[in-house]
Amino acid sequence: MKSNLQIARAAYQPKLPAVLKGATALQEGQATQSVANQEDIQKLFPNTYGMPLLKFVQGTAKAGEPLNVGVILSGGQAPGGHNVISGIFDGIKNINKDSRLFGFKMGPDGLINHDYIELTSDIIDEYRNTGGFDIIGSGRTKLEKTEQFDKGLIILKKLGIKALVIIGGDDSNTNACVLAEYYAAQKTGVQVIGCPKTIDGDLKNQMIETSFGFDTACKTYSEMIGNIQRDCNSSRKYWHFIKLMGRSASHIALECALQTQPSYCIISEEVEKNNMSLADVVEGIAKVVKQRADKGWNFGTVLIPEGLIEFIPAVKSLISELNEFLAANADEFAKVAKDSQRDFIIEHLSKENAATYASLPLGVARQLTLDRDPHGNVQVSLIETEKLLSEMVGNVLAQWKKEGNYNGKFAAMHHFFGYEGRCAAPSNFDADYCYSLGYTASLLIQSGKTGYMSSVRNLTAPAEQWIAGGVPITMMMNLERRHGEWKPVIQKALVELDGKPFKKFAENRQNWALNTEFVYPGPIQYFGPSEVCDQTTKTLALEQA
Amino acid sequence: MKSNLQIARAAYQPKLPAVLKGATALQEGQATQSVANQEDIQKLFPNTYGMPLLKFVQGTAKAGEPLNVGVILSGGQAPGGHNVISGIFDGIKNINKDSRLFGFKMGPDGLINHDYIELTSDIIDEYRNTGGFDIIGSGRTKLEKTEQFDKGLIILKKLGIKALVIIGGDDSNTNACVLAEYYAAQKTGVQVIGCPKTIDGDLKNQMIETSFGFDTACKTYSEMIGNIQRDCNSSRKYWHFIKLMGRSASHIALECALQTQPSYCIISEEVEKNNMSLADVVEGIAKVVKQRADKGWNFGTVLIPEGLIEFIPAVKSLISELNEFLAANADEFAKVAKDSQRDFIIEHLSKENAATYASLPLGVARQLTLDRDPHGNVQVSLIETEKLLSEMVGNVLAQWKKEGNYNGKFAAMHHFFGYEGRCAAPSNFDADYCYSLGYTASLLIQSGKTGYMSSVRNLTAPAEQWIAGGVPITMMMNLERRHGEWKPVIQKALVELDGKPFKKFAENRQNWALNTEFVYPGPIQYFGPSEVCDQTTKTLALEQA
Repeated sequence: MKSNLQIARAAYQPKLPAVLKGATALQEGQATQSVANQEDIQKLFPNTYGMPLLKFVQGTAKAGEPLNVGVILSGGQAPGGHNVISGIFDGIKNINKDSRLFGFKMGPDGLINHDYIELTSDIIDEYRNTGGFDIIGSGRTKLEKTEQFDKGLIILKKLGIKALVIIGGDDSNTNACVLAEYYAAQKTGVQVIGCPKTIDGDLKNQMIETSFGFDTACKTYSEMIGNIQRDCNSSRKYWHFIKLMGRSASHIALECALQTQPSYCIISEEVEKNNMSLADVVEGIAKVVKQRADKGWNFGTVLIPEGLIEFIPAVKSLISELNEFLAANADEFAKVAKDSQRDFIIEHLSKENAATYASLPLGVARQLTLDRDPHGNVQVSLIETEKLLSEMVGNVLAQWKKEGNYNGKFAAMHHFFGYEGRCAAPSNFDADYCYSLGYTASLLIQSGKTGYMSSVRNLTAPAEQWIAGGVPITMMMNLERRHGEWKPVIQKALVELDGKPFKKFAENRQNWALNTEFVYPGPIQYFGPSEVCDQTTKTLALEQA
Repeated sequence: MKSNLQIARAAYQPKLPAVLKGATALQEGQATQSVANQEDIQKLFPNTYGMPLLKFVQGTAKAGEPLNVGVILSGGQAPGGHNVISGIFDGIKNINKDSRLFGFKMGPDGLINHDYIELTSDIIDEYRNTGGFDIIGSGRTKLEKTEQFDKGLIILKKLGIKALVIIGGDDSNTNACVLAEYYAAQKTGVQVIGCPKTIDGDLKNQMIETSFGFDTACKTYSEMIGNIQRDCNSSRKYWHFIKLMGRSASHIALECALQTQPSYCIISEEVEKNNMSLADVVEGIAKVVKQRADKGWNFGTVLIPEGLIEFIPAVKSLISELNEFLAANADEFAKVAKDSQRDFIIEHLSKENAATYASLPLGVARQLTLDRDPHGNVQVSLIETEKLLSEMVGNVLAQWKKEGNYNGKFAAMHHFFGYEGRCAAPSNFDADYCYSLGYTASLLIQSGKTGYMSSVRNLTAPAEQWIAGGVPITMMMNLERRHGEWKPVIQKALVELDGKPFKKFAENRQNWALNTEFVYPGPIQYFGPSEVCDQTTKTLALEQA
């Protein structure tokens, strides 16, 4: 059974850049360099380094030989993945009706294990403009070993696949580039094209304005935050601590803050830059709680980026020492009685880390020593930062009350939004953007390109005026330390503290804290006035202003 | 600042029943009886008992004397409250442009403490079609003492208020009726009219088809559940345990199940009827997890009604004994060492309750003895049922695995949706329904009625064909035991196990469990095709089919 919205939405025809609607030609731009470590990257990617930027313009090429293409969805879901796939499908069918599209199932595993389906028009039509990655599933296996590449090649050759499109985040696109290089070096004739996916918004740069899914996910979270703010402004008795998915970067928290104007929002990148302690972060919130209480407002909202805890230098240092200490002393620690574990840890850590550890609420401290992943590391993502912070804020306020400096009431509610937004039906923006990314990928394939990421730019203009082309993935790379080795990786985009979105936030946050300036964005609208349905993120609007 | 949707939505003109658009006359139906305890209720409400049902029909009355009206928002927020108020406003202004509307602030406290504002058209226009109760705020103070009534009367008289509209749930409407009776007995000349509000859906009966807000809240939760289901169907590795607000009744869980077709949904009323133990509930879920795992599906969704725990007879009995035992032995218990508390409790409880207690995960057991409200009672609403159940399901599965009866993977995620939906901008249905309820209230006031609830019926037909009128609140009452006394209260509507919504669910749930039949309703749409924007709940459609 389908919901009425699913049925109505299936009929939506995503918008394409005008240039892609007719016959195209490929315009080559300047040769490119990687963002850093140019010599090293060039050495690692002799076949795919230094390629020019590409842009499609009006031309004469159109029909062509049939193309067999494979596609993989890699990593966490993001709204619009199905539209990338339908864009590829329509693109290659438009080139030649005998073109075929194969989907590898459950992520890179499908390629390695030769688990695939042919995506026919019947299947594609079922998934147009829908959220989720369920058309072929997704998975987190890293495609990085030549053994995997070789196994994949067997099925690619068997199916006569000319090109593989990998839809993924920064790591998956890094791997796509390594694969492109390998297949080029081996003269396999198989091309590899990447597509920029992630709700986290951290895969962007000069040529990739935004990753797909960020728009829809942020709007879904903002709907929820807005609803909570309206509730909070009606009953006037709760502080809502709202954690938002987004891995390391705080793009989602920042965008949601710009959309909803909460009482407080933490940006991890700022916490790190200012070398703030956990106590500093807590005090920052407590001050706003107090200031609002002084006005009689014992309510508000706090947005917390998922990755916060790793950006607090003191906590980072504590976790790192804990990981080493517990690994080295696992047997001894196992013998310590439960009640004595906390003291045992405090005794054995360096002075500074012991102090940080001692400052943590008991539940969190316990989590840090007990719940560990198979490699023995603290599972940071399981730490309920929203509860940790509200508990510590409550403690500070209780102390201030004792000292006569605070006279309010503080009751907290907790939320974590993540899974609620990753598979929402794509907004008109994401539906159009993704379809265009997929369509562009088909043209890059037709042009024989490899090691490129599909790129659609000028995104705050109407879709008609979008610019479509390709960016060499090597251009986005630098060397970074991973597991004790220098690795070529796509540079992750964190929130820039001198960028316009953060500046806009920083200029306004005091006002949002001291006056109740909540905005209620409401749910994503697919039909109706264009200013309601077709606007993309505040982040993008500010960056391109 | 306002969001674009807020701006666009402000222009929406809610639909009214055709009969209310022109001049009306009041048609009196049969005299009414209370649903039970007729003699007792009649004695308690000599002035407001037995009144006839009322229905507005085409007529000649229209303009009239100016009316001064007061309004109170009582209890938890529900989408559409602002539209009830704008309906009253437009209604009384239509009767006479010199009519005035006063809003008492933060619930019944505003009446008692004479804290109010005049709601002028400037203010009303800011809040049309918006969610929340922030126009005047809401509160949970119970309006039930004559002292409060007398205090309220002073300000009502001072402002020349002819009638007070109380927008609230079953308890608030019970109190509205008591107030109506008191003001009538005292010959104050002040009328009292109720409006049926609650997202929980438990204020309904033969004449009140649904309470307002239920539609919007369920759609908002279903959006979220659908998104999670799409995620779960894409990554195929998590079971999502989703608790839904709704107090005692399971209407919200049932409606969301009908909208989203989850793998499993618990209905508290069924648990109680079948006298199920917590272990039975857990095993019911575990069986479905196992059956799906046998198909290779280690994922799914479980919907859990907020009030579940109180419907499990064994847990109810445990909580009741714990409350008594801990109250009677507070001092002794306080001296027991933390590590020994569990054993201490088990030793002292009756055999059956001790067994139930012993079966609970440690964290929950601890919650039951430590976190108590100011009256010393267990805070049932704080129990994280979603975590409790998933932990116990995990234990059962681990046991089955040991016995060789289960070979899957089980990883759980947890969600609780409540505050996310109570203040969403009302759906077209709730916007229209609420506006009509308010408008009808104004006509009941003009007709000099008191002790009535505003009633708009035939709700699955187009708004044009809705029937507007009034229902004597006494008609909905019976006597119930509250705090050791028999009290007249509006009968709460729980899920009827022989009703069509539950039957539809029961017929399909096996299919939803064993085949993945997820539906993705998506976000509420305010513009666009009528089948997407204007449908009300599955519950109502089934009940009226």
